[in-house]
Amino acid sequence: MGLIVQKYGGTSIANLERIRNVAERVAKTFDQGNDVVVILSAMAGVTDGLIDMATQIAESPDKRELDVLLATGEQTTAALLAMTLNAMNYPALSLLGHQAEVVTDDTFGNARILDIGARHIMDIIENRNIVVVAGFQGCDPNGNITTLGRGGSDTSAVAIASALKADICEIYTDVDGIYTADPNICEKARKINTISYDEMLNMASLGAKVLQIRSVGFAKKYNVPVHVRSSFNEEEGTMVVSEDSGMERLIVSAVTHDKDQARITLKKVPDQPGVAAKIFTPISESSIIVDMIIQNTREEGQTDLTFTVPKAAFSNALEIERNVAKEIGAEDVLGDINIAKVSVVGVGMKNHSGVASKMFNTLAKENINIMMISTSEIRISCVIEEKYTELAVRVLHTAFGLDKED
Amino acid sequence: MGLIVQKYGGTSIANLERIRNVAERVAKTFDQGNDVVVILSAMAGVTDGLIDMATQIAESPDKRELDVLLATGEQTTAALLAMTLNAMNYPALSLLGHQAEVVTDDTFGNARILDIGARHIMDIIENRNIVVVAGFQGCDPNGNITTLGRGGSDTSAVAIASALKADICEIYTDVDGIYTADPNICEKARKINTISYDEMLNMASLGAKVLQIRSVGFAKKYNVPVHVRSSFNEEEGTMVVSEDSGMERLIVSAVTHDKDQARITLKKVPDQPGVAAKIFTPISESSIIVDMIIQNTREEGQTDLTFTVPKAAFSNALEIERNVAKEIGAEDVLGDINIAKVSVVGVGMKNHSGVASKMFNTLAKENINIMMISTSEIRISCVIEEKYTELAVRVLHTAFGLDKED
Repeated sequence: MGLIVQKYGGTSIANLERIRNVAERVAKTFDQGNDVVVILSAMAGVTDGLIDMATQIAESPDKRELDVLLATGEQTTAALLAMTLNAMNYPALSLLGHQAEVVTDDTFGNARILDIGARHIMDIIENRNIVVVAGFQGCDPNGNITTLGRGGSDTSAVAIASALKADICEIYTDVDGIYTADPNICEKARKINTISYDEMLNMASLGAKVLQIRSVGFAKKYNVPVHVRSSFNEEEGTMVVSEDSGMERLIVSAVTHDKDQARITLKKVPDQPGVAAKIFTPISESSIIVDMIIQNTREEGQTDLTFTVPKAAFSNALEIERNVAKEIGAEDVLGDINIAKVSVVGVGMKNHSGVASKMFNTLAKENINIMMISTSEIRISCVIEEKYTELAVRVLHTAFGLDKED
Repeated sequence: MGLIVQKYGGTSIANLERIRNVAERVAKTFDQGNDVVVILSAMAGVTDGLIDMATQIAESPDKRELDVLLATGEQTTAALLAMTLNAMNYPALSLLGHQAEVVTDDTFGNARILDIGARHIMDIIENRNIVVVAGFQGCDPNGNITTLGRGGSDTSAVAIASALKADICEIYTDVDGIYTADPNICEKARKINTISYDEMLNMASLGAKVLQIRSVGFAKKYNVPVHVRSSFNEEEGTMVVSEDSGMERLIVSAVTHDKDQARITLKKVPDQPGVAAKIFTPISESSIIVDMIIQNTREEGQTDLTFTVPKAAFSNALEIERNVAKEIGAEDVLGDINIAKVSVVGVGMKNHSGVASKMFNTLAKENINIMMISTSEIRISCVIEEKYTELAVRVLHTAFGLDKED
């Protein structure tokens, strides 16, 4: 018995039948004597539909009003679930962001949570009511509706779990948990039972799109235990916890990949102060997110500079850099859209040398050329030709001992 | 120049193109130097769609949660209109019920407005911003979302106009205004330029479904001038004002009809205290709305009692009264579903005798039998056979001098 926060994503509540299934799961948890706070996303596809409607009005719809519009998605599901629970004779109340006292800054469309007043929710819980909170939304200190950005319901859930000092935050989704690699391309991938916040932070940004990265940062900061699991079965999923929670100690926990990468290289860039700013300022002004940046010294006074951008931004970025190259006197701009990034992630590598060389050797054995390398404390990433992605993931998965037993 | 409240109904904002038209009308009013506060309904059909979804969950969905669900309809249109105005470079902000400080009681689904704090809206207006308020919704003193019942956006508009001391409350709809009779059955019907609150109150309840009756009561109480007009053209509509506002003085202002009537008669009811309660208590417990009630003395100790109910409630009411008749010892229960009510309405009849006899004579000349009669200070209603409805309306319209000139 305890206080359990459960978050259900859009596919788990895509229609009234699935909402009924979710209600039964919530009821079961409640019947076990737990207090339950449920956080919901919008039904799958609804948010995209609303954005589509808004962009028929204006290419860049007013951000404040877009948030008012988008907030209806989670308001709808919260009301429907509370209604379903009431119809099943479970006492349930829905709360919108402002009612749940989710106070954010006023960055419409991508607001940051400043504070969550747990008082109202606790009052309701103390009377043995189930609380259903519309995720993804909050309000700024002036009472304007805000939204937290893509996947923001995960952040809502973790933040509310933290404010309530909940025993656990369960994230229900359409996958069983976090895997050691994408099971679609690596059939020997195993479900991970326990993983650290830091590993998730490194995996989320690399394409394991199960948990929104900001929610993991929040969970880490406030030490909220997160359980990622499927809403379609009863299996245990993956626990995301702090590093010292007695985890299994593998050197490498997972192999991830990201095909949404394109590479741009500026050749023979004059090596002068201010050049990097000239290269990246117009990119960021176009809201293009740069992932890896690598600068090689070439020869006296000149350097090659390579960076990666999402594939969708490639042609735009390339055009920008062709103009930049003229301005700064770089020799040439090269682009390559057929690349991918593969990474190995694991807290274990902090204390183990040889992970990088093992990775490079494993790829070399398959004649996979490494174009770029970047590393963090617990991650090594290599950019390779896109066509080798699946092969690279499989051989790395085997090499680091992650394959499941048959 | 002044402060103008404009309310647009569901058909006026049924799609993005129509919302654009509304935005242009709002912009024009704003450009003329007026401050503008807009109240919106949901898009036509949306509220019914949401109710349909809720009743798939439960026959009687939880009322609090149904209001949370329904409130998304007006939230959507308010955001879309504000977005459209912003895209046209007009400064506009949407406000939901609670943000507009529309405080109601906690009668979910049919809440009464207790108070409107005009402060927030006035603050926004004073900076020359257009305010777009989601109609139909408010919040109770505990911050729960409430809705005002069918047509509640009219009430929102009048109440907000009253709180802001607006110069006028314009109700935009899909008809040109209030007519002297239904133009569909009386081709000589004229649009009324000015009508009193009391006449509207008598007409609204009789089937002239242009303005929600509660909003008219509100307008009368706070003396809010209301202008009912079409959002599809620039014509002046009908002004609804207090009686002493220098109106045209016709004895009868309009002829209305209501075919949604059925009649039930209990024959030879023992004339004892408590009998009427026994007859009507089970009817009201079944949420059946009784319109006219007439009791004729028959002979010593016995009476006939006749009343009308909506056609949809007829068979239910008939069954109820058959049981009641046994219990109280009435001789028989008769029912007739083929009836209609025609009424003449006008403040002028307060000071003129002979209106009733003129009405009865006019119907008699056409051999239309009058089954029931009821009167108020400014209205006379007759129940007749349904098949004579159109004829009755036309001859009364002519008899009371309402026909338009050719």
